[in-house]
Amino acid sequence: MNKGLFISFEGSDGTGKSTQVRLLTEYLRSEGYDVLLTREPGGTVISERIRNIILDPSTPEMDGHTEALLYAASRAQLVAEVLRPAIESGKIVICDRFMDSSIAYQGYARGLGQDTIRMINEFAVHGLQPDITFFMDLPPEKAMLRVESQGHKDRLEAEDMNFHDKVYQGFKELSRFYDKRYVRIDASESIEEISEKIRQYFRDYVERRDRA
Amino acid sequence: MNKGLFISFEGSDGTGKSTQVRLLTEYLRSEGYDVLLTREPGGTVISERIRNIILDPSTPEMDGHTEALLYAASRAQLVAEVLRPAIESGKIVICDRFMDSSIAYQGYARGLGQDTIRMINEFAVHGLQPDITFFMDLPPEKAMLRVESQGHKDRLEAEDMNFHDKVYQGFKELSRFYDKRYVRIDASESIEEISEKIRQYFRDYVERRDRA
Repeated sequence: MNKGLFISFEGSDGTGKSTQVRLLTEYLRSEGYDVLLTREPGGTVISERIRNIILDPSTPEMDGHTEALLYAASRAQLVAEVLRPAIESGKIVICDRFMDSSIAYQGYARGLGQDTIRMINEFAVHGLQPDITFFMDLPPEKAMLRVESQGHKDRLEAEDMNFHDKVYQGFKELSRFYDKRYVRIDASESIEEISEKIRQYFRDYVERRDRA
Repeated sequence: MNKGLFISFEGSDGTGKSTQVRLLTEYLRSEGYDVLLTREPGGTVISERIRNIILDPSTPEMDGHTEALLYAASRAQLVAEVLRPAIESGKIVICDRFMDSSIAYQGYARGLGQDTIRMINEFAVHGLQPDITFFMDLPPEKAMLRVESQGHKDRLEAEDMNFHDKVYQGFKELSRFYDKRYVRIDASESIEEISEKIRQYFRDYVERRDRA
């Protein structure tokens, strides 16, 4: 079998997303799959340079439109140079956040326009969408309690509740818009329960696909 | 009078565009106007950093989608930080090429999709369009003869005739799409004739506006 697969994880901070990314990656590797885990923004020489511009604290004058376009540019290069070739060569690519996070955070929550940000990101990925998007669904109040209990907040996490609620509503709308690839995961369950559900979904997906 | 004005010049290489930009700038300054002449990509700290990524010859792997998004990002920052404040403070801003060149070159000629590139650039300028766009209209065969007689071709100019023809058709379509701001200039006339027509159009425009 030489069919690659592209899996993204989406959701707010505090939903246990990164833990599940790690657990699925470990599971798939133990099953003998060739797995590529990528980070955004970054992942290529050009994307890392763009990342440095985005994250440079000495230029707080960066406009929200500039930032959104830079995230999309970094993603475009990662897709062209790394993700698409990896998937075409049969690897499983896992992304902890992909284009939907840009749409939820910049389009919905920051008010830059969800349709426009979606269109810009669809241009950036030029046709490459995840096959499966696991949406870690947890109401923002609960997610924030978890982040606070971990004792640290980064810039985004420190936004007010209204912002987090917009992000959450954004993801819910995206799960309807991209309903074919979205898989809702109840993130209030235990790490083990969630992890097993994700593995089961993956196994069923591959079996269904290979039968087709 | 404290009304700014935004003027762009568009057209292919070899149409005498940059000469007319210079002549209009000199004329307006001699008339006492406060004129800002900008270059793209660049013009702010962030935009110059983006420019360095775009123009770095050591990364030929740059994807066309990445490049288009980086041009738009550089433009977004220039608009937010320099152009919009300058126009709001009453200056005349002159751009030798602006968003329409991206649409003509990347959207039409490189085949990245004219509607998408236009949408991305409208996002980048978030509402700031030129008041007047002087379109230096010259059939591509004639423009190329002029470029060749100057004895040098840069990367874009060395493209084949088919490419230059698509750029030209792109500008013609843009002149219909943005018909309110487009002013067609017959670039086959002499430098002096063209320069006088541009000055005349400017004087009429300002008089009309100040009467309104």
